[in-house]
Amino acid sequence: MADAAHYAQEHQEAHLRELIDFLRIPSVSTQPEHDGDTEAAAHWLAREMGKAGLKNVRVLETEGHPLVYGDWLHAGKDRPTVLVYGHYDVQPAEPLEQWQTPPFEPSVRGDYLYGRGASDDKGQVYVHVKAVEALLQATERLPVNVKFIVEGEEESGGASLAAFIPHNRKLLAADVALVSDTTILSPEQPAIVYGLRGMCYVFLDVTGPSRDLHSGSFGGGINNPINAIGHMIARLKDEDGHILIPGFYDKVRPLSDHERQVLSEFPLKQDAWLKETGAPQAWGEPEYTLIERLGARPTLDVNGIIGGYTGSGRKTVLPSSVHAKISMRLVPDQDPAEIGELFRQYMQAVAPPSVSATVQVLASAPASLTDLTTPAIKAAAAAYREVFGREPVYMREGGSIPVVSQFQSELALETVLMGFGLPDDRIHAPNERFYLPNFYRGIRTSIRFFEEFGRRANE
Amino acid sequence: MADAAHYAQEHQEAHLRELIDFLRIPSVSTQPEHDGDTEAAAHWLAREMGKAGLKNVRVLETEGHPLVYGDWLHAGKDRPTVLVYGHYDVQPAEPLEQWQTPPFEPSVRGDYLYGRGASDDKGQVYVHVKAVEALLQATERLPVNVKFIVEGEEESGGASLAAFIPHNRKLLAADVALVSDTTILSPEQPAIVYGLRGMCYVFLDVTGPSRDLHSGSFGGGINNPINAIGHMIARLKDEDGHILIPGFYDKVRPLSDHERQVLSEFPLKQDAWLKETGAPQAWGEPEYTLIERLGARPTLDVNGIIGGYTGSGRKTVLPSSVHAKISMRLVPDQDPAEIGELFRQYMQAVAPPSVSATVQVLASAPASLTDLTTPAIKAAAAAYREVFGREPVYMREGGSIPVVSQFQSELALETVLMGFGLPDDRIHAPNERFYLPNFYRGIRTSIRFFEEFGRRANE
Repeated sequence: MADAAHYAQEHQEAHLRELIDFLRIPSVSTQPEHDGDTEAAAHWLAREMGKAGLKNVRVLETEGHPLVYGDWLHAGKDRPTVLVYGHYDVQPAEPLEQWQTPPFEPSVRGDYLYGRGASDDKGQVYVHVKAVEALLQATERLPVNVKFIVEGEEESGGASLAAFIPHNRKLLAADVALVSDTTILSPEQPAIVYGLRGMCYVFLDVTGPSRDLHSGSFGGGINNPINAIGHMIARLKDEDGHILIPGFYDKVRPLSDHERQVLSEFPLKQDAWLKETGAPQAWGEPEYTLIERLGARPTLDVNGIIGGYTGSGRKTVLPSSVHAKISMRLVPDQDPAEIGELFRQYMQAVAPPSVSATVQVLASAPASLTDLTTPAIKAAAAAYREVFGREPVYMREGGSIPVVSQFQSELALETVLMGFGLPDDRIHAPNERFYLPNFYRGIRTSIRFFEEFGRRANE
Repeated sequence: MADAAHYAQEHQEAHLRELIDFLRIPSVSTQPEHDGDTEAAAHWLAREMGKAGLKNVRVLETEGHPLVYGDWLHAGKDRPTVLVYGHYDVQPAEPLEQWQTPPFEPSVRGDYLYGRGASDDKGQVYVHVKAVEALLQATERLPVNVKFIVEGEEESGGASLAAFIPHNRKLLAADVALVSDTTILSPEQPAIVYGLRGMCYVFLDVTGPSRDLHSGSFGGGINNPINAIGHMIARLKDEDGHILIPGFYDKVRPLSDHERQVLSEFPLKQDAWLKETGAPQAWGEPEYTLIERLGARPTLDVNGIIGGYTGSGRKTVLPSSVHAKISMRLVPDQDPAEIGELFRQYMQAVAPPSVSATVQVLASAPASLTDLTTPAIKAAAAAYREVFGREPVYMREGGSIPVVSQFQSELALETVLMGFGLPDDRIHAPNERFYLPNFYRGIRTSIRFFEEFGRRANE
């Protein structure tokens, strides 16, 4: 098996050249002018997956951007199957003038490869393609069965893959999913994300008069929808951060003592963290630690609000309406549809009769949590430990990756979130980059994961 | 004196032609491309004031648009002096496509003259110019001394007149101010506005993190400024409409039984009024009637709010900041500067330490209230009664005319607000119009006011 690692090390230059080619394709999934590029990226990846030794490689057309599928299923029936997920589409590159080198002309400076998609997620998904190649070249086989499903709409909502999964359960059937689309803590400190929060996203509209009125002529006579929404927002969360929607916490799975112990060992430097936010102080449910609140507790945030006169200067208007966007991050075992309904009922109940309130539930995904004692997680930990020389930390990620929820709900798959990005990779921002030592270590870690998982799953 | 009314009646056609000429000049004070037109309107008005028989007519240059002054001071030292105020500037005409005939090509259709400024305020200020002309032509004298001050920035903040008044107290000295820039109730029902609310306008900014953060990664860890401003707005006013700022009501002059009686006689049709607003119900301090709340009680309205992501669709951001514009309408004897300071202190006190709040006090003007027993008000009532054939109703206007406050504070002048506009004149909107029978009745009412006031002030 050292042969595969040796092969990877010998071929670093070639692997970097290929990744640079991949990054050159401006596969911006949200920009229709790049639809051709996004399609081209799918075909480029499919070709490279085939060259790496994967079988049955296909570009699957969808209503949106295509999916890329490939597999290698000759490890034997006694061996487990890993479903590798990633995405070949990228965020828009704007604002272009803030890039030191053009976003789609990849540039190596020092230990970094700069370019849109370097870390999110082309570099990370390519790690696994090269791990497969190294294993096949060195040993002519893989220690586990492997399937790849790589989408082109992760940055634009992921609708096509979401629609594909329920109709292709057999094609995607596996024992575990492996996703590299997250970060580790530092170049030397690997991390395994074992929990993702879910999401319930709602629009709240409050309407008073049917048109904007003169606040002098009508003020005092009818209720102002912005004043009213202030009361309604104030009733969503108390001043300590507890969410006041009746029933909101009913199904929250309590944090076990063991998990609180694991989370307490997470090396969060609170002062540096706070400084990065620029906020006056950390804040939230006082009976939970900061790290618990950031990943293991549900939240409610008003993401945006707009109503009345918002131009410069002053205008004395009693506005017709106000619109708020509100997201709730959920934890196991909250049901996003139920939470949306509780939100709606509560807002209807607290809206004063002098205004009308409407709630639209937009998107929802349940939280996911991986059992830390499974062979897959243990294999990932062993792989990290061996390649990075350090035990990984375990973290709950506050964000949401809806496809991970769907793997769990539709395919009954637990997901191993084994990231190779770094917190300062500037994903979604100008000058995105990937730390190249982690690209190479990532390939070796992936090789070791396949080996360890094959061995442990069979024990 | 019937001679002056007769003269006015005989010259209706000429007076209408002149008003049409006045309306042709697009004196939009807020649009720099119309600066030349605004200047031209001042000179046109000065020329017509001179032709009407006013003396000392001057176009007074300012830092902004000029003021037009003229007087006739030969009534005798035993006669009182009336300061007539109006404005020759107009609102922007946009949206142009909604006008049936172009805004600056005045058109008579039925009983109405259509054109920007017809009612607000060219038609109404010109009433008094023509009243002076009629009196001088018919009797060679006026029954009172008269001064005119007509500004060109009423629709753009009025800064030049506000700066002019304190340095020209002697020039503007008078016994009463007469302003026709309001509406009566219906063509047959005249109304005297005896109270105007004052104003304190503030900006409230609440900032949490120094930049927008990912609500998944940071949600639960720091306070969200929009959630925080919700709590702060909820603490400004209770759900019945009582303002909760400590000390806010301390100086409010209580409504006398007499005034409550007068207001209760105001013919407000509540159902029709509510239907016009489109709001689900009337609302406000339950211990006051609607008509009291609309003019005689102070208010607090959030005029606009904006923060976080306000584009279409959803974005999971924990926003850096939120901005709210808030106006408070004031009544006698609230001090606008003190109210601004109470607002600031209260918001600083209720802002949680997890965000920072700043308050900017923008504009303030005290309320004004005219004593209904003065000779000037009695003269106005008599004039209306005689010309319209009906007793005027007395109303407090919920809006604010800052120059009226300044007449009171700087010149110790009470103001008679004797309007000739109608509620459906569409001021500030497309197809602004003036009801021509009221233009002619207005001239006769103004003549009768000067006569009655001269007589009564001397009793």
